[in-house]
Amino acid sequence: MTDTFGVDDALEHIERLRHGETLTTERASAVLGLHRTGRLADYQLSSWLATIAARGLRFTETVALTRAYLGPARRGARIRRSGRTVVDKHSTGGIGDKTTLVVVPLVAALGVRVCKLSGRGLGIAGGTIDKLESVPGLRLEFTEAELAARLAADDVVIGSFSGELVPGDTATYDLRSVSGCVRSAPLIAASIVSKKVAVDADAVVFDVRYGAGSLVPDHGTARRLAGLLVRLGGEFGLRCRAVLSDGSVPLGRAVGNAAEVDEAVEFLRGSGDRGLAAECEALAVQMVRVAEPDEPEGRIRERLRSAVDSGAALSMFVRMLTAQGGDTGPVLDGGGYCRPGARTAVLARGAGWVTDVSALGIGRAALKLGAGKVFADDVIDPHAGIRLTRHLGERVAEGDVLAEVFHRDGLDSGEAVELVAGAVRVGPRENCRVPREPEPVSEADVHTDGTGVVHV
Amino acid sequence: MTDTFGVDDALEHIERLRHGETLTTERASAVLGLHRTGRLADYQLSSWLATIAARGLRFTETVALTRAYLGPARRGARIRRSGRTVVDKHSTGGIGDKTTLVVVPLVAALGVRVCKLSGRGLGIAGGTIDKLESVPGLRLEFTEAELAARLAADDVVIGSFSGELVPGDTATYDLRSVSGCVRSAPLIAASIVSKKVAVDADAVVFDVRYGAGSLVPDHGTARRLAGLLVRLGGEFGLRCRAVLSDGSVPLGRAVGNAAEVDEAVEFLRGSGDRGLAAECEALAVQMVRVAEPDEPEGRIRERLRSAVDSGAALSMFVRMLTAQGGDTGPVLDGGGYCRPGARTAVLARGAGWVTDVSALGIGRAALKLGAGKVFADDVIDPHAGIRLTRHLGERVAEGDVLAEVFHRDGLDSGEAVELVAGAVRVGPRENCRVPREPEPVSEADVHTDGTGVVHV
Repeated sequence: MTDTFGVDDALEHIERLRHGETLTTERASAVLGLHRTGRLADYQLSSWLATIAARGLRFTETVALTRAYLGPARRGARIRRSGRTVVDKHSTGGIGDKTTLVVVPLVAALGVRVCKLSGRGLGIAGGTIDKLESVPGLRLEFTEAELAARLAADDVVIGSFSGELVPGDTATYDLRSVSGCVRSAPLIAASIVSKKVAVDADAVVFDVRYGAGSLVPDHGTARRLAGLLVRLGGEFGLRCRAVLSDGSVPLGRAVGNAAEVDEAVEFLRGSGDRGLAAECEALAVQMVRVAEPDEPEGRIRERLRSAVDSGAALSMFVRMLTAQGGDTGPVLDGGGYCRPGARTAVLARGAGWVTDVSALGIGRAALKLGAGKVFADDVIDPHAGIRLTRHLGERVAEGDVLAEVFHRDGLDSGEAVELVAGAVRVGPRENCRVPREPEPVSEADVHTDGTGVVHV
Repeated sequence: MTDTFGVDDALEHIERLRHGETLTTERASAVLGLHRTGRLADYQLSSWLATIAARGLRFTETVALTRAYLGPARRGARIRRSGRTVVDKHSTGGIGDKTTLVVVPLVAALGVRVCKLSGRGLGIAGGTIDKLESVPGLRLEFTEAELAARLAADDVVIGSFSGELVPGDTATYDLRSVSGCVRSAPLIAASIVSKKVAVDADAVVFDVRYGAGSLVPDHGTARRLAGLLVRLGGEFGLRCRAVLSDGSVPLGRAVGNAAEVDEAVEFLRGSGDRGLAAECEALAVQMVRVAEPDEPEGRIRERLRSAVDSGAALSMFVRMLTAQGGDTGPVLDGGGYCRPGARTAVLARGAGWVTDVSALGIGRAALKLGAGKVFADDVIDPHAGIRLTRHLGERVAEGDVLAEVFHRDGLDSGEAVELVAGAVRVGPRENCRVPREPEPVSEADVHTDGTGVVHV
């Protein structure tokens, strides 16, 4: 079809798609092919993406789009080399989400092979690669052969792929973010799952966060997206599970790249925030379950706790950093990676309990401090960020330090301080928001209507 | 809002629009303003248009979009100068649609003021301006003041506006056609009605054509679009009526610019195709009714017939051409404007009756002959075209001339001849397609559900 399918056909296809015509792999490949060869302009591809997003796709169409993203030549990059199960993990992102830094070494410490290819963040939630770049010397970009070698040697690797993993996703990913086509279930699912298929993991656990500051607004939507991800992955032979989690409150106490690495290290050392612990445990349990389906859940929880208590999880983290050339001194000496030029305290202006912490407000403050990118050419300050000294449900006296903001010396932190002060709400105890516990989604739960269009 | 509304806000607006947020005039004006000042790229505007097209708009949102197209400064170009009703007419376009050339002088001959601003065609159905350009010397582009003067002097003007009539429509019209956003009811309606409001007519009759080769696929869709147009025009103080017509068969016998002018002249002389006559009469009746609401329909029909029989309608056409500097010789001497370099006959390959004539096939043949544009920089041959010597329901013997194709000398007409031969189907009499009669849509018929999203 690509040979005879021209720009006029693509435009007619967009009109028909809007009026209900089925999206096929052939059609989607033809559109992507025209764009790749420079015959279809960005304003035409964005119209196609916006049409898909607004009309929605049926499940079979979402499968077709994912296949088209992958391209005809490859099912995967063949990173897997041995017969043992390789587990991957994907989070839809959220403020303070450092779960990857915790669960990858934790699960690997239990003998599960973990290959985690991550991306960078753009906007309010940083990416895992940005976070790990605050570890001096750490190598994060690997070729296909290097990834396979790292995995064979150490059972664990975190990094990014140096090649073009999924051509169709490459073409559409950035355009989506600059044309208002981000929050679309089929586009999200095709983008995520095509990359998981390409790295050729055996199993994936999806962490789907919801609430203000997340990709999806509410629990119901997150549940539908999780169902779509699990089922779509299954269509490509991946064993998938998912965890739904409340992203309207920052996860843990640290937000900002180095600060989050430090909080992950603390956690692996055995101390840490209750909310972060609940979520990391939920994710780790699912990651082990997909690799060892016969292991009882109670036994998995015991092994996870013991991997932390014994120091095995932290050792695995240090081993991973060492193998990838990273400076492990700040872990070993306990000083941490976050060494900001200046710190400013945010003080409580009243007394009571922390009734709510707005992830969106904290995320915006972190951006003001230089912890993330608004535009692609912004430079991230790895030490910039926020650490909450009081979190949801904790008691506060007037003048208490609610949080510290970290920034480079000379930066005016006034606006960030105001954002943090507004984000941490103090009031009567009975007003405290109760976040939902992380909720595992097992395969039995996720069947969506096979014919209906799935909207986020 | 325009001052503080940035590109990020526009992208968030697109995401929210898709999820149901109401489109307001302020939002739409802000998006159009960002694009006009070069801050919003075409790929962002096309994503917005595709989102509107795929999600659909509620009626109040369509009103808001139309207002945004018009811009804050103007309700209209104030072309109207006297207290008498000025009637406009708009067709959604179709193969062989030369009704404007017939009904504008016909209705004007009855003493109704007609101001008809037309566009050019792109693609398979030519525009009225393209057709009239086959009249040597005819002036078609007017300023606002010139239009008012022409109307005051002669009660009739056909032409195009030399200025930018509707800024918002200018920005979106071409982008829609190159990004697959043409067949969308709210975008069609906002584009048409904003232009009708801008020229400040008092009343408009919409000719909505349906079937293969038309903007809308079927009668039901045409009815909904007509309802939307009438109601939307009403919202801006225009008295509107509509006619639904079957566009799957060419209207009349001639397709091609000069050939269509000649057929219109024949019609005004009193002879002509039955289908063309039915449609012109239906449109003319509605145009007189909006201007003279108390005149009984039977009386209008009598006056129309008498204007043709007395030669008053043809005289009005000649007067209009003369006033606009056009060569009237070909009308007066009966030779016609269509003088092609070569003519090729298309012969019947079987005997029977003409069971169907595909407007789409005839339109494609006309394009091959050079009668229309595929790309904006194509040059039109005004003499190129097709004349059907047999039309729907007429008897055919093997070897009869079904049609003549007109083209420049030396052009290989083989492909066009094949297309015409394929478009004119010959078979048993009982298989003859019966096209629907043109159907007037009165104001009482057109109320659509005020809260529902209207899709084409």
